[in-house]
Amino acid sequence: MTHPRYTDLVQSLPASVPFVGPETQERQRGAPFLARLGANENGFGPSPRAIAALQEAAHDAWMYGEPESYELRNALATHLGVTRDNIVVGEGIDGLLCYLVRLLVGPGDAVVTSDGAYPTFNYHVAGFGGTLHKVPYRDDKEDPEALLAKAHETGAKLIYLANPDNPMGTWHSAAVIEQLAAELPGGCVLALDEAYVEFAPEDAVPNIAIDHPAVLRLRTFSKGYGLAGIRVGYGFGATEFIKNFDKIRNHFGMSRPGQAAALAALHDTEWLETTKANVSEARARIARVAERHGLQALASATNFVAIDCGRDGAYAREVLSKLIGLGVFARMPFVSPQDRCIRISCGPSVEMDILENALSSSL
Amino acid sequence: MTHPRYTDLVQSLPASVPFVGPETQERQRGAPFLARLGANENGFGPSPRAIAALQEAAHDAWMYGEPESYELRNALATHLGVTRDNIVVGEGIDGLLCYLVRLLVGPGDAVVTSDGAYPTFNYHVAGFGGTLHKVPYRDDKEDPEALLAKAHETGAKLIYLANPDNPMGTWHSAAVIEQLAAELPGGCVLALDEAYVEFAPEDAVPNIAIDHPAVLRLRTFSKGYGLAGIRVGYGFGATEFIKNFDKIRNHFGMSRPGQAAALAALHDTEWLETTKANVSEARARIARVAERHGLQALASATNFVAIDCGRDGAYAREVLSKLIGLGVFARMPFVSPQDRCIRISCGPSVEMDILENALSSSL
Repeated sequence: MTHPRYTDLVQSLPASVPFVGPETQERQRGAPFLARLGANENGFGPSPRAIAALQEAAHDAWMYGEPESYELRNALATHLGVTRDNIVVGEGIDGLLCYLVRLLVGPGDAVVTSDGAYPTFNYHVAGFGGTLHKVPYRDDKEDPEALLAKAHETGAKLIYLANPDNPMGTWHSAAVIEQLAAELPGGCVLALDEAYVEFAPEDAVPNIAIDHPAVLRLRTFSKGYGLAGIRVGYGFGATEFIKNFDKIRNHFGMSRPGQAAALAALHDTEWLETTKANVSEARARIARVAERHGLQALASATNFVAIDCGRDGAYAREVLSKLIGLGVFARMPFVSPQDRCIRISCGPSVEMDILENALSSSL
Repeated sequence: MTHPRYTDLVQSLPASVPFVGPETQERQRGAPFLARLGANENGFGPSPRAIAALQEAAHDAWMYGEPESYELRNALATHLGVTRDNIVVGEGIDGLLCYLVRLLVGPGDAVVTSDGAYPTFNYHVAGFGGTLHKVPYRDDKEDPEALLAKAHETGAKLIYLANPDNPMGTWHSAAVIEQLAAELPGGCVLALDEAYVEFAPEDAVPNIAIDHPAVLRLRTFSKGYGLAGIRVGYGFGATEFIKNFDKIRNHFGMSRPGQAAALAALHDTEWLETTKANVSEARARIARVAERHGLQALASATNFVAIDCGRDGAYAREVLSKLIGLGVFARMPFVSPQDRCIRISCGPSVEMDILENALSSSL
């Protein structure tokens, strides 16, 4: 009865967790949060049609999800003006990032990202033994030129960039992203995380040929569509690229009610417009509240706002800690200099009221 | 604009799929199935309390699932008489098998299974570069002695065994499994897939100390609880073993409505008893129908029945093909000599009626 022989890679991994969930924090503080504004969930909720589809699909929950996500991919193909074979549906962008890294990255392979960008991407890279090379943000934005230079320098197989960015909410114009895609080093893939694209101005959405061999764009039903809980995301790119996911993905991994809800949500364009208006209003309100306290809210193309607390990371952590103590679940960037900010998700006005009061007490 | 540099491993993988879904077959045949009896789904459906929980949770679908599955693990701990730290919750047994293989198996590592056992396990082993060693079934049962011998011979890191077995429905007594666990070679893990355990006789459920360092037992809400579509499974074993999953699992991978449904299903023990009675009745009926046609149904400890068509694989494939042509979704073992059988899932009497008629026409 000796012990399991883990791979060398697994033995080298820390027992790290990309994010501590709000429920864990609630258990630690011994009380529920009053406002849940820390994970960029969309408190305006999904389309009523998506809720109805989810409820209807409860009766079908005895059946496995459809392994090809055929209907959903057809609908997404129409939505995006591409073909079904350009699309892979997966268990949220997190799940798809895991597959993507697994396709490309083995021990020692170079991967480039920004210092302070999405930690779950880093978690997957570490999980497959890749070597992460990080470049600093510039003016609170990810820096495509620096990412490219670092990719050239390291011979990277993969660059990660989110546009709009998380955790800062900033964005690049389409032209900048298009140039990045055009100038990728040979054999280097761009993972373009567009989780927040529905909230972004039109001119932040690049026009990249779907048959670009080395760009994978990632989107989700978690943010704009308000369905984080169902775990449905998608990637799109060249068919040659996309078909590789079939070699490793969990073919029966999609929840059937989730597939139904995503399909219904996609068709409810009116609800999406309402959500965008609600988010826009909440963003403006968060900015006003910040300004009233002499703080600056960064312009955001997402459903959250980074508030510059005006001093260093220690101070912002203190503000965040007070907010949490007052029952507001929020988060902040992990890395300097972005960590002078706290990050607040947009939510319905009752939660914005709670935030406003808590922020006043915290500052 | 050159192409992605996939890992050597990924380049070597075929674009294989463990199972073709019934919906794909429906599209190919241009008509829906009349009876869905091929994937060992549980057509008796989940507890009404689980359906209600799923519907109620639709309103919470804007929130991510709880990354620790804290409540569900607590409930499972009570159910199993172990602690929360002995349990990992994951995206179905398929998802957990992927994690398990990833923890242990690197290129060239030996893994032992039975020839004709669960193909999705093999898919994961191939996906991480492991070398599969297969031993034959004996008398339509997996052969623990042969598995052990092969593991010794190959220095295997991992043995897979399902009890009860899929696709044959056969089972070993607790004593046999306990002996297998006791005699594992040093550094060899037993993945004991108990997907069908709720349907098995009590004496098929082994008593293995929860702190056995090298046994991981896998169970699911997909079968007994009738919730295949929500993708919730769990593994249990020594805390030292279990905690490694936190290094690689998708921490925010669980669907929130799925977590709620699983919790409700677990608490409805009465429904589970009803389901077991329903399945037992359907098993007996399938056996009677087979016998009426001079065929033998294998005794089953699962929610499906393997019917021995009495000749070779070609003949059984022909029978299966006719069944499918008549609108009955069914499957059959992939490998000789098990492939003399077809495999029929238990279902409500309306589906059993359809099966009975179709089988009469097919033989």
